[in-house]
Amino acid sequence: MKVKNIKAYGAEASDAAVEPLEIKRREATPKDVELEILYCGVCHSDLHFVRNDWGFSVYPVVPGHEIVGKVINVGAEVSKFKNGDIVAVGCLVDSCRSCGNCKKDLEQYCPEWVGTYGSHDKHLDLPTFGGYSESIVVDEHFVLTIPKNLDLAGIAPILCAGITTWSPLRKWNVGKNSKVAVVGLGGLGHMAIKLASALGAHVTLISRSPNKIKDAMDLGADQVVISTDEAQMEKVQNNFDVIIDTVPYAHDINPYIGTLSTDGTLVLVGYLGPLDPMLNSIPMIMGRKTVAGSLIGGIAETQELLDFCGEHNIISEVEIIKIQDINEAYERMLKSDVHYRFVIDMASLKS
Amino acid sequence: MKVKNIKAYGAEASDAAVEPLEIKRREATPKDVELEILYCGVCHSDLHFVRNDWGFSVYPVVPGHEIVGKVINVGAEVSKFKNGDIVAVGCLVDSCRSCGNCKKDLEQYCPEWVGTYGSHDKHLDLPTFGGYSESIVVDEHFVLTIPKNLDLAGIAPILCAGITTWSPLRKWNVGKNSKVAVVGLGGLGHMAIKLASALGAHVTLISRSPNKIKDAMDLGADQVVISTDEAQMEKVQNNFDVIIDTVPYAHDINPYIGTLSTDGTLVLVGYLGPLDPMLNSIPMIMGRKTVAGSLIGGIAETQELLDFCGEHNIISEVEIIKIQDINEAYERMLKSDVHYRFVIDMASLKS
Repeated sequence: MKVKNIKAYGAEASDAAVEPLEIKRREATPKDVELEILYCGVCHSDLHFVRNDWGFSVYPVVPGHEIVGKVINVGAEVSKFKNGDIVAVGCLVDSCRSCGNCKKDLEQYCPEWVGTYGSHDKHLDLPTFGGYSESIVVDEHFVLTIPKNLDLAGIAPILCAGITTWSPLRKWNVGKNSKVAVVGLGGLGHMAIKLASALGAHVTLISRSPNKIKDAMDLGADQVVISTDEAQMEKVQNNFDVIIDTVPYAHDINPYIGTLSTDGTLVLVGYLGPLDPMLNSIPMIMGRKTVAGSLIGGIAETQELLDFCGEHNIISEVEIIKIQDINEAYERMLKSDVHYRFVIDMASLKS
Repeated sequence: MKVKNIKAYGAEASDAAVEPLEIKRREATPKDVELEILYCGVCHSDLHFVRNDWGFSVYPVVPGHEIVGKVINVGAEVSKFKNGDIVAVGCLVDSCRSCGNCKKDLEQYCPEWVGTYGSHDKHLDLPTFGGYSESIVVDEHFVLTIPKNLDLAGIAPILCAGITTWSPLRKWNVGKNSKVAVVGLGGLGHMAIKLASALGAHVTLISRSPNKIKDAMDLGADQVVISTDEAQMEKVQNNFDVIIDTVPYAHDINPYIGTLSTDGTLVLVGYLGPLDPMLNSIPMIMGRKTVAGSLIGGIAETQELLDFCGEHNIISEVEIIKIQDINEAYERMLKSDVHYRFVIDMASLKS
C-alpha cells in the first residue's frame, strides 16, 4: 500500500511540547475519502494522549478528533462523497463492521474500533494520526455530512463534545417531559445544556461556581444549582431523570445520586477511573437509581446529531486559535480558561 | 381506635435475644383484613433489625415480612377477601397511595411507605410489628392472593427473597434470549436462579464456592463460574445482559462489571452501604455498562410473581423451624448454614 508524507503537529514524548513534524498516511483506497483539514477542535483527551496520562500512548502522537474538512480525493468505490464536499470526521475511523455492536450502529463499543489517533491503522503498519495535520484519509462509512447552514469552526466540537453528551441523552430518552441535570460546565457540559434544551427538557446546571450562572442560562439552562450549597441541593432531591456528569476528574457522585428520581440515571461521560470516594448503594437501592457510563456515539447517531444541530442552529461556543498556539491552549484548558472549546484554524499549518 | 393484645416473639434491645412478648395491634378498620399467621420466613433483614445494624430500630422489634396466613376477619369495605382465604403479606403494609410512585404501582419507592415491621402505623401511635406473631391486620390493598397449588411454607420467602429478585428481572426485561448471572447463592440467589430460569434465560451462578455447583444446577442454573478462578471469569467477559448481585456485605463489584455486555446492568439487591473498593468507571464508559439498585417490589408486581410461581410450580427451598428456635436459626444464617431459607411454623407460637 502506498503512503505519503504530510505536515502535522504532534508530540514525540510525554514530556515534549506539541511541535511540527512529518507523518505518513496511507493513500486513499477504493473506499476512502481524503480530506484537507480546515478546522480541528481541541479535546481534553488530546492532552491526556500527548502526556500519556492513560499509559498507552505510542509516540509520536498527533492528536485531534473533531475534524471538519474539504474532500480533495475519493476512492473508486466511494458513493456518498465527491471532491469539494465539506465533511466531518470524529473519534472513530474504523471498526470490525460485523460484531453485534457494529450491527447495531454502536461502533464505539466494537472491540476492534480504530480511533482517529492512537490506534493502529488496519491497512498498514502505522499508528493512526489525528486532525492536527493537513489532511486525513478515512473510510467513507466514518465520514459525516454536515449541515450547510452552520459555522464550520463551531461544528468541529460537535464531533466529540457534542456526540459524547448527545448519545446518553438519546439512549436515556430525554425529551419534552424530561428533567435533565448537567454536572460541570466545560466543553462537554456546554454542549449537553444546548442539546438537552433543544430536545425540550428542563435543564439544570449543577456547578460549584456561582460565576457559571449567567453563561449556563445563556446556553439554555432553566436553572443553576450550586453543589456546595446544601439548601439548594436539598431542593432538588429525587428530582432528575437523567444527569450527564461531565466532570473530568475523580469526584464524589453520591450527592448527585440523591438528586435522581426513581429510575433516574447518572451517566458518567467525563472521568475514567475509580469513583472516589466509594459509591453508596443505599440511595441506589432505596430509589432504583442507576449509574452508567457512555462513550462518544456511533456513526449513525453522530450523523443524527449533526442533522439535529442543523435544524436547531446549534454549534459549539469556540475560541479559534492557530496551531502554533496549541501548547498555550493546553495550559489554559487545564485551568478551565476556555469558553468553551478551542478550535484550530488549520490554515495556520501552512504559514 | 381500638387495639388488642396479641402474642409475638421479638427483641427488647439490640443485644437481647428474640423472646416471647405481648404486642398491641389495631383492630381491623373497614378496609382491613386480619389474618392468623401460619408461616413466616426468616430474612436477613430481620436480624439486621433485631440487632440495630442500620441504626434506626425502635424496640421492641417484632420481625417477619414473609407472611402466609388465613383470613379470620375482614372490615366492612373489604371486597377482595373473605374469612378462610389463605393469603400473603410481604414487606409493605401501607403507602401514601397518591404519589407518582404509588400511581405507578411502585409503592416500595413511596416516600411514605410503611414497612411490615419497624415503621409507624398510620392509624395509631404504635410501631408496626411483623410476622413473628399470632396475627396481623393489613389494609386489603397490601394483602396478596396465593396460588392454591403451592406448599404454604415454601411460598413465604417469595414475599421478600422472591420479589427482591423478580422485580429487577422484570424491570430489565429478562426473557428467553437473556443471559443472566446471579452473584451469591443464598436466600435471594436461589430464588433468582429459579425465577430467571423459569423466564427462559440462560442462567449463570457466579460464586466463590465450588461446593455450590450441584445445588445451583439443581435449582436451574446452566453453568457456574467460580469468581476466584481468573480463567473462568475471563471466559465470561462482556457476556451478561443482567447480573443480580445478592451478596449481603461490602464487596468488589468491578470484576462483575467486566462480565456485563454492552448495555448490560448489574443490579445490587443485597448490600446496603458503600461499594468497597471504589467502582472503576473505565469499563462502564468503554462498554456503556450500568450499575443499579433495586428494592423488593410493588404490590401488583408481587401478585404477578405469586401467579407466575403458581403457573411454574415454583416455591422456595425451605427448612421449617419452630419460633422457639429462632435465635439458633439466626446464628446458622450468619454462617450461611441454611438451604436456602428458614420458615417458622407459627403454630409453634401456641405451644
